[in-house]
Amino acid sequence: MSERTVREIAVAAKAASRVLAPLDEAKRNAALEAMADAIAAAGPELSAANAEDLKAAESLSGEDALSPSTLSRLKLNKAKLQEMVEQIRSVAALPDPLGRVLDATELDNANPLPGGSVDGLHLQKISVPLGVLAVIFEARPDAVTQIAALALKSGNAVMLKPGKEVERTAIALVDVLRKAVAAAGLPSDLISLVLGRERAAEMLAMHDAIDMMIPRGAKKLVEYVQANTRIPVLGHAEGICHIYVDLAADEQLALRVIDDAKLDYPAACNAVETVLVHRDIADEFVPKLAEHLSRRGVKLHGDSEVLKLTKDATPVADWSHEYGEPEIAVGVVDSLDAAIAHIHTHGSSHTESILTEDAVAAERFLREVDAAGVYHNASTRFADGFRYGFGAEVGISTSRFHARGPVGLDGLTTYKYVLRGRGHVAGDYRGVAGRSFTHRKES
Amino acid sequence: MSERTVREIAVAAKAASRVLAPLDEAKRNAALEAMADAIAAAGPELSAANAEDLKAAESLSGEDALSPSTLSRLKLNKAKLQEMVEQIRSVAALPDPLGRVLDATELDNANPLPGGSVDGLHLQKISVPLGVLAVIFEARPDAVTQIAALALKSGNAVMLKPGKEVERTAIALVDVLRKAVAAAGLPSDLISLVLGRERAAEMLAMHDAIDMMIPRGAKKLVEYVQANTRIPVLGHAEGICHIYVDLAADEQLALRVIDDAKLDYPAACNAVETVLVHRDIADEFVPKLAEHLSRRGVKLHGDSEVLKLTKDATPVADWSHEYGEPEIAVGVVDSLDAAIAHIHTHGSSHTESILTEDAVAAERFLREVDAAGVYHNASTRFADGFRYGFGAEVGISTSRFHARGPVGLDGLTTYKYVLRGRGHVAGDYRGVAGRSFTHRKES
Repeated sequence: MSERTVREIAVAAKAASRVLAPLDEAKRNAALEAMADAIAAAGPELSAANAEDLKAAESLSGEDALSPSTLSRLKLNKAKLQEMVEQIRSVAALPDPLGRVLDATELDNANPLPGGSVDGLHLQKISVPLGVLAVIFEARPDAVTQIAALALKSGNAVMLKPGKEVERTAIALVDVLRKAVAAAGLPSDLISLVLGRERAAEMLAMHDAIDMMIPRGAKKLVEYVQANTRIPVLGHAEGICHIYVDLAADEQLALRVIDDAKLDYPAACNAVETVLVHRDIADEFVPKLAEHLSRRGVKLHGDSEVLKLTKDATPVADWSHEYGEPEIAVGVVDSLDAAIAHIHTHGSSHTESILTEDAVAAERFLREVDAAGVYHNASTRFADGFRYGFGAEVGISTSRFHARGPVGLDGLTTYKYVLRGRGHVAGDYRGVAGRSFTHRKES
Repeated sequence: MSERTVREIAVAAKAASRVLAPLDEAKRNAALEAMADAIAAAGPELSAANAEDLKAAESLSGEDALSPSTLSRLKLNKAKLQEMVEQIRSVAALPDPLGRVLDATELDNANPLPGGSVDGLHLQKISVPLGVLAVIFEARPDAVTQIAALALKSGNAVMLKPGKEVERTAIALVDVLRKAVAAAGLPSDLISLVLGRERAAEMLAMHDAIDMMIPRGAKKLVEYVQANTRIPVLGHAEGICHIYVDLAADEQLALRVIDDAKLDYPAACNAVETVLVHRDIADEFVPKLAEHLSRRGVKLHGDSEVLKLTKDATPVADWSHEYGEPEIAVGVVDSLDAAIAHIHTHGSSHTESILTEDAVAAERFLREVDAAGVYHNASTRFADGFRYGFGAEVGISTSRFHARGPVGLDGLTTYKYVLRGRGHVAGDYRGVAGRSFTHRKES
């Protein structure tokens, strides 16, 4: 497999995707179950491959050394293997994203020719797979099985480019998955591996064969992919989320929500980075907020107004910075309009929340703020596919195109229009004497 | 206006789009009515500007000379002005594409804090505008008003780059429209003009300010735009549509549909370019088809099998060629599978049709062919926004992303997630003792 060129891999993936696309849900689910069984049975060989990755990773020193958290993510123990197996099964159990009738319209109710089983001209909009996904990810073995499962469930082929640290584990995993897929009667080229930076760069140029790029990793990786491909990219380079504490905010609610939005998981893209406080409540609220955050171990950065109100803060260096740590910027704004303007200037269109008891202010914020998620009296941390009820999350998109916000299996589909007639021709509907379309909704 | 840089124009357009986005339908429709009235009242000045464009166009000679059909499209007479006015009014009358609840889910039915007007945690997915559209078009005055109307109706700002031949007319039209929009209380920067090739190229680089590029014109223009921008492109470079005449086709139906698909409007992207005939009926059907097409003045190109069956054909030079004329390629295939493989190799994923009385073959074709439109016993010419019942057509997309096939006003929108709570935080749903999401569909 490693001798094939990236183009050959992509072309084979496209061909495999066209075999998979028309298959019904039962066949796709059977392949997923086969994948889960195969991973469960391959514990020893997977652990051996992973041990090699771990050994290599632990031998790195100095600048190359991996952080303890990266090493822990890299490690594939029994519990993680079991989780991977369960994750594949849970993807199989999700509702089928394909073949859904998104729209149905009768264009005409009569036939120009006798016979046939169709009565009239009928248009349907049906969900179908995208085709070939290419995923670039970092040192996570579970990314291999999770992405492969999501791709197969949604009828897509997938090309996987793992981080260097996890290469041996990824090779072993993909080998097991390809064999399982083939044993289930599907083309093994539905899942393939692309190794090395240069080959990853080659993928970026294949807009004719690859339908979607999914970079999963640090901001630098996402930005590099976005800047260097014509293939549509699903992802987000950063999450600069704001909470605006309005004039009419409930103080206890505000402290509770800000605490969660910052501390539930500070490294997440949906963690809050900036709190904006209305001037009229700043004197009272900012010291309380500073006291609360300081007690909770959060480092505070403030604008000049905030620095006057608390001694716990240092000046804000950059309002567009994603801390990813228990650190937060706090600023004072004159009005709801000023808060919205600040968000549009410094935000990343990810998730923005207003805290207020004033329903009119809340509705203005929800309507006027341009972001994938706009919240009232809730933590930004809810921006997540599982919390939204999608079952699985492919990623979070800050693009305005195709899919926005948390993306579930639907984000891996597109649609096609299916038209069924009985010799219907466009010329029959031309001119004053022509037939008229009925355009009757059937869905 | 012409002194502003392209970036200044784009930034002003973005700001204007954010003023427009939250406005309700009545305000957008009032602006559209004002635009229609203003165009109706500006007949003399628009005709004067158009006369200058026409004079310049008519003075061109040799290679630069415009074709009679281009000159006729360029000309703005009374009837065309009236059509433009009516077109704006008909866009105003379309259903509002914004603020539609695409999905609604209750995430929880209880509140962690007392008070508030909301009961539980509720998520909505709401349609919103894209932001700023940039449209590059050729010598059509009516493109200015049509695009501006579609943009405004869908809550977007628009930057218009007209062809050189229509510049004076476009300047006059945009001037009238900007004043009308301002008089209706909206920012005039919702509609702006970008003149010249170099400034158009600058637009292509502004992926941070422009949300969608719409190239309207020849294949070369579309391909140039697709290759030179990171901004998502709505459009299609070409339409290589196929009709597959199956073993079990009804002969009369087949001749009728092929006639329409080729001759209703040969220059259209949804006209058929290639007919594939099943081998088992080729001996009988190909001579009849050749006779019919020849009588109708269609030039025939054939593969070696077809050349044996008729003397009216010349060899096919390129199966991926868009004739755009009364010319057609005909080939013989061994099976439905061979037809599908040919379509996937040579098609442009635009619109593909099978003609057959065999329901199983038809359903296989509709399911397996990967294209924006897949038809059974109907002409490819139905691939059109008006015929599909969209009211207005923004364009036809052969991309798999965002919008596919004929695109109506919906294609100019995206969505955002609106979450309303009462101090809900993600931490409450963590661990075995945590609350559970209800994830109850509310739409």
